[in-house]
Amino acid sequence: MIKVVLIGSGNVAQHLIAAFQNAPNSGTEIELIQVYSRQTASVSHLINLEQITNNLDALAEADLYIIAISDDAIEAISSLLPFKNRLVVHTSGSVPLNVLNEDNRKGVFYPLQTFTKNKPVDFKIIPICLESENATDYQLLDKVAKSISEKVFAINSEQRKALHVAAVFVNNFTNHLYQIGQEICQENQVPFEILKPLIAETANKIMVLSPEEAQTGPAKRNDTATIEAHEAFLANENHHEIYKTLTQSIQENGKKL
Amino acid sequence: MIKVVLIGSGNVAQHLIAAFQNAPNSGTEIELIQVYSRQTASVSHLINLEQITNNLDALAEADLYIIAISDDAIEAISSLLPFKNRLVVHTSGSVPLNVLNEDNRKGVFYPLQTFTKNKPVDFKIIPICLESENATDYQLLDKVAKSISEKVFAINSEQRKALHVAAVFVNNFTNHLYQIGQEICQENQVPFEILKPLIAETANKIMVLSPEEAQTGPAKRNDTATIEAHEAFLANENHHEIYKTLTQSIQENGKKL
Repeated sequence: MIKVVLIGSGNVAQHLIAAFQNAPNSGTEIELIQVYSRQTASVSHLINLEQITNNLDALAEADLYIIAISDDAIEAISSLLPFKNRLVVHTSGSVPLNVLNEDNRKGVFYPLQTFTKNKPVDFKIIPICLESENATDYQLLDKVAKSISEKVFAINSEQRKALHVAAVFVNNFTNHLYQIGQEICQENQVPFEILKPLIAETANKIMVLSPEEAQTGPAKRNDTATIEAHEAFLANENHHEIYKTLTQSIQENGKKL
Repeated sequence: MIKVVLIGSGNVAQHLIAAFQNAPNSGTEIELIQVYSRQTASVSHLINLEQITNNLDALAEADLYIIAISDDAIEAISSLLPFKNRLVVHTSGSVPLNVLNEDNRKGVFYPLQTFTKNKPVDFKIIPICLESENATDYQLLDKVAKSISEKVFAINSEQRKALHVAAVFVNNFTNHLYQIGQEICQENQVPFEILKPLIAETANKIMVLSPEEAQTGPAKRNDTATIEAHEAFLANENHHEIYKTLTQSIQENGKKL
């Protein structure tokens, strides 16, 4: 049996604990034996109290230690681990593998998803991006990842960096466009609810069409009259600038094709 | 019974024909009696041949004429209709009501959704935005809209303009961000597939959280180190500029709160 210890108690840590506890082979092939959390209360609804520790010196012996904490604390905590030559991974999209302390074997176990507190996700469909220093460690990570997800990928640090930047565009920036949509609605006394089916369908389309195929709108059509009317309509300087920048970018794309 | 004639055979027209044909009260309370299409073949899979005409002079008498054609042809076709004082509406998000010819009573019947050829949509959840010149016509439009959708809204031309601009942000611009995500993946030999669950969840979140609540990422956290690393990573000048513009906009929002 592969024994796993999880270090952390935030959003990602909590979703990972739930995923390991619910895995079909939990307790037979793979077991989450312990969670390290400075605040016991933040994970006590997910795992038995006796499996939680707030003392790094009390960490159990395990085949894999998963550090699921904020990016800027990974280096520090990895250097405080009281053992050597064990497999230690972090879960971050933007931190290189070699930030982990040299005393242990290093790896990455990066679930690429946006996690919301108290909103359950179906972990089976979440891509997990793995990296390790050697093939044996990779095989172990692969087994652990496949116990909770059907989508496991070997991704090196450079590729992971690219993925993280791409994720900022499709997640953080997209959400910001939703916010601008909401602001425009509010300024004009229109319920934002009206846009929600469009938001859902825009994301749905990408499951079956490429972004190029799915692209529509005045910029794509080079519909100058509508673009000018929209720009005149946007009194908010910031909205106006984003409209111009993204419209130009879509038009430039059109020229390349 | 309310009799409806649909003028047009493109994407929106086809989805509307299917929605009317499948409405529970089709043929009892509301009936799509005729479709005008220059190319019979483009709608003959949706409605009986004898109900299709390519001759404006052969338009049947009806309670409502829905013009579902491209924006720039609405004015012209409305002026060619061979009757007076009937209710004529268009389906466009960006064309004002008064573009329709004065000879008839004017209205708007705007389904706010992105329609893909051959990809069925659940019309029941599509918001339909209605506008008319008088209350009697509004009641008729309301009945017809509610026969195919559960979400019907009274939206005047100014509000509709705002909605259309907002829709460009949450649909056209969001899709363009998906495309940039794909380009970054391709440039770095990472499958775009990995980002699809994130895209789906980003849209899902907005169904339960406000965009402000859902916002995450380096710009929101003012994580300067990550932002600088991402900007250095983005060799593509266009991607780089969009990254900067949207990051600044998210940071400005943070200051306002």
